[in-house]
Order: sequence, then structure tokens, then C-alpha cells
Amino acid sequence: MSLDTTFSALADPTRRAILARLARGETTVQDLAEPFAMSLPAISKHLKVLERAGLISRSREAQWRPCRIEPRALKDVDDWLDHYRRFYDESFERLDSYLRTLQAGRSAKQPNKLPRTKVRTKESGHGRKK
Amino acid sequence: MSLDTTFSALADPTRRAILARLARGETTVQDLAEPFAMSLPAISKHLKVLERAGLISRSREAQWRPCRIEPRALKDVDDWLDHYRRFYDESFERLDSYLRTLQAGRSAKQPNKLPRTKVRTKESGHGRKK
Repeated sequence: MSLDTTFSALADPTRRAILARLARGETTVQDLAEPFAMSLPAISKHLKVLERAGLISRSREAQWRPCRIEPRALKDVDDWLDHYRRFYDESFERLDSYLRTLQAGRSAKQPNKLPRTKVRTKESGHGRKK
Repeated sequence: MSLDTTFSALADPTRRAILARLARGETTVQDLAEPFAMSLPAISKHLKVLERAGLISRSREAQWRPCRIEPRALKDVDDWLDHYRRFYDESFERLDSYLRTLQAGRSAKQPNKLPRTKVRTKESGHGRKK
């Protein structure tokens, strides 16, 4: 599977909604089609795109052929993102720092007036440690 | 910016290569075009797609109009992936566990014959802690 195919498959809201549904558990094409007010062939087409991208698989054994999420392609996206994490981790750290400064200034003027801003500290960080 | 636009922009190897180049520092369109053996208009077209997707920005001030990575859209992809991390974290944990079992069995039969498999432990885990 290539990142081209994966990103291309993910660039569609219906396909992402199908993945979100499958994140709750494997299911049939019929059940997947229901909330989308789409024909079965239309849903099947989306499933084929997801399947070709390695994002889902369909059982060949069970008669109801359940679909399920395949993690490999999503993991590839995550690995690709690794090269860029430092950009948003850094920039969000700067924002946090700015918000803290802002809040400190406001708190000094208006004590007990503002709710505590939820800021991210290094300790609770979103950053992925290698 | 929508995930549709972001994923669609990322579904192209040249555009991902441009991002990889920009990860090393901001640069001009001329410098970006060089390694691709592409015309400036062709590169500019890719840059416009990346810019519309909020993945890069171009300075309006400096005369050489440097391009740089914008982290927000990449962060959105990362946040979207959060819903699926447990799938590959779990499945890779199962694989790790299987490899460990396999290795333990082989090591017992052929001591000092196999290199140590690099396995991920919970402590060094890839998983993002919230």
C-alpha cells in the first residue's frame, strides 16, 4: 500500500465516516449503508477504495462478509507524521506559553474571575516520546 | 481547512517531498523546484494546493517569498488518527508478544544463534498517553 492510495482514500468524508463506524466494531455492508442514505453499490464502491488502500478488510469466510479496520495503513500515516510532529509540538508549546503569560497577567488584575485555562505541560505532553 | 483538502493534498508524492524539504527549513520556490526537474509553474501549482490545504504558507513580506510548513493541518490529521491509534497499538502489541514467544522458543533450541529482536515494551511504547 502506498501513502498516495491511503491519503487519497481518506480524502472523502463518507469513507472517514465508514472508518469511524468500523472503529466501533466489525459490521456488514448493509449495516454500514444504513446511516448514509446511500445505495449498497455506492457504499460498496467506497469500501473497495478503502480495501485497496489497505484501510479495511472484508472476511472471505463468513457469509455476511463483515468489514473491519486494518491498522497497517493508519500506522503508516502515523509514522509519516513522525517527521512533522516537532513542528506542531513546538508551535503548540509556544501557544501554551503565550496563554500562560496572558492568564498570569489577567489573573493579577482580576483574581478569581477567569476559569483556569487548560494548558499542556511538558509532563502531560501530547508529544510522542521516542 | 478540512480533512478532505488536507488528505487530498497529501495524496501526491511531489507534494509530500516538498513538505519533507520544507521540514529542513523555509526556502524559495526556485530552490524547491531544483531537485524535482519540474518547471516553476508546475511546482507553483503544487505549492498552491499545499497552501490551500493550510499545510504551508508563503511569506508576503520578504521579496523572495519563502515557503514554510504550517503545523495546524498536520496536527488535525494527528488528532483524527487519535481515534484509531488503539487499533495499531493493540495489533502491534499482539505482534510483539507473538515475536517474543517465537524468539523465546527459538532461543531455547538455538542459544546465541539469533540476534535479539527489537521489541517494543509498554515502557518505551509508541502509544500516545493522554
